[in-house]
Amino acid sequence: MDRIFISPGPVYEPHLSENDYLWARAYHAAGIGKEDIVLNAFSYHMVAAGLTFHGGLRRVGATVIPSGTSSSQQQVQLIRDLNVTAYTGTPSFLMAIIQKAEELGYDFKSDFRMRRACFAAEPLQPSLRKRFEKEFGIDTYQMYGATEVGDVAYECSEKQGWHICEEVLVEIVDPETGKKLPKGCLGEVVVTRFNSIFFLFRFGTGDLSKITESPCPCGRTSYRLNGIEGRVGDALKVRGLFIAPSQLKKIQEIFKDVKIQLIVARISHEDILTIRLEPKEASINTIPIEEKFRTVFKDICTVKIDRMEHVQHGTLKEDDRLMIDERTWK
Amino acid sequence: MDRIFISPGPVYEPHLSENDYLWARAYHAAGIGKEDIVLNAFSYHMVAAGLTFHGGLRRVGATVIPSGTSSSQQQVQLIRDLNVTAYTGTPSFLMAIIQKAEELGYDFKSDFRMRRACFAAEPLQPSLRKRFEKEFGIDTYQMYGATEVGDVAYECSEKQGWHICEEVLVEIVDPETGKKLPKGCLGEVVVTRFNSIFFLFRFGTGDLSKITESPCPCGRTSYRLNGIEGRVGDALKVRGLFIAPSQLKKIQEIFKDVKIQLIVARISHEDILTIRLEPKEASINTIPIEEKFRTVFKDICTVKIDRMEHVQHGTLKEDDRLMIDERTWK
Repeated sequence: MDRIFISPGPVYEPHLSENDYLWARAYHAAGIGKEDIVLNAFSYHMVAAGLTFHGGLRRVGATVIPSGTSSSQQQVQLIRDLNVTAYTGTPSFLMAIIQKAEELGYDFKSDFRMRRACFAAEPLQPSLRKRFEKEFGIDTYQMYGATEVGDVAYECSEKQGWHICEEVLVEIVDPETGKKLPKGCLGEVVVTRFNSIFFLFRFGTGDLSKITESPCPCGRTSYRLNGIEGRVGDALKVRGLFIAPSQLKKIQEIFKDVKIQLIVARISHEDILTIRLEPKEASINTIPIEEKFRTVFKDICTVKIDRMEHVQHGTLKEDDRLMIDERTWK
Repeated sequence: MDRIFISPGPVYEPHLSENDYLWARAYHAAGIGKEDIVLNAFSYHMVAAGLTFHGGLRRVGATVIPSGTSSSQQQVQLIRDLNVTAYTGTPSFLMAIIQKAEELGYDFKSDFRMRRACFAAEPLQPSLRKRFEKEFGIDTYQMYGATEVGDVAYECSEKQGWHICEEVLVEIVDPETGKKLPKGCLGEVVVTRFNSIFFLFRFGTGDLSKITESPCPCGRTSYRLNGIEGRVGDALKVRGLFIAPSQLKKIQEIFKDVKIQLIVARISHEDILTIRLEPKEASINTIPIEEKFRTVFKDICTVKIDRMEHVQHGTLKEDDRLMIDERTWK
């Protein structure tokens, strides 16, 4: 066995072999190679992250600076002194580093040479991605995996979903029954990867996603994960299909003038899905958008809306929940 | 290039290749192998230590726990939970870990399975070594090297000097002239190691040592370094030979009843070496030990004593220097 890492608890698990070169595929897809000097801001101590990403970066030939959990000020110094071209770590730590650099009087985009960032371990918010790319000139890539199974999926330059690695078998299942869901449905990401060190059969990640089978313009032929919509416990199951809060938030980004609430009730043994729409300003009428809303909702959440309620401006309170489950299971 | 590390300054240097498996020879000589679970308490972040020792441990087949700079309490937990059999790190940190364990109510020797420790980066005091071995049942090994050149020498179970690694060329030189000193003399350790990444020709370590050519009972045929006697700046040169404070301290360990002071003067263009002996208690007479003292001094320091002064108990003050250079170089 190569090494052992610790998870809070503590849960001890063997580390996947350093010979597997996990994540190399992801770094390659992000365009990282021999010319790159990469800051690896994941911790190398106890957790598996630092050493695992280090191995992947070395596999594509990049020079690695194992900066780990050094302070943001030290990371700024390294980026400057060593002409760092890429970053791997969490998005929030990169933003902290950029803020520290600007605080120290640097113009991050023009003073430094960092042009790429590969993120893992934390969701990348679309607004943050936009800032990294537009404001600071950093091309961003998401990588998805778990310590227990290694790399699972990664983004290519098309950024239309995450390509699933060839070595892993990904299933989308109903977390309650463990049964595979029909194509295109939202469900728990369950991963199987064969290896001789730490073989987990059908490892439940607790993450919600769905699979896209359509081909990617990049030319890779793998299926893709459609991002992570949230965690299993956050979702509601409506007529056998899961709806996650993050899906509603996506819809809300399209319909910026309205507030949304989703209610699931059970009438004569059937789930009834109601959407409440409230105009953000009293002058807006929500009725004309109803049809487009139904289409977008079906696209994103798969489930069909049964009823739509148009409520007056001021009806939904700030602390009202986004999704309400009125069903009882007596 | 594999990775870059930082030294205070900052000085940036490329890391020696992970393919060289530095330190594997040292761990093997310490008896570490496939059955071992080793706590690597060197930092993996920025400095070269953690990753380099990790590579050596993997090379001999040991399972590594990359605990790095985790707290002593966490290290205790790991030693206990994972049945750790060996430690690599500094001696002072291992003592801190043992003290924390005893503070937490454990009996380190009987509750844990740690039986070996391989130290680097810090001198191992003989008194501390004795405690590790006798009190806590930990067989200790010293490893010697420098970030710039990798592993230089290591101890075998005979613990009679440090075997010099086959890949390095070690010279003992006069730090003032850079010239090689005669066999068996104390001088600066200068190392040359061929490699394609970071080739330093005659790297001056600043450490003082001498070479032993006599065969080791372990069967290894390499020359050996006779420990590290101190740093270049701490030594005095007497008739072309260096004397380090640590050598005097060794002598003091043999003659426990006396205090020692060394004085170098220059009379008619010659160095005159005087040793002052003071009894630690008024009742002790230092004259009878003079002959044995001269012999031991010659063995350890190579230089011959010119004069011996027997001073009264209470003459040497607590803050008097161990070595005094009275020469002027006008």
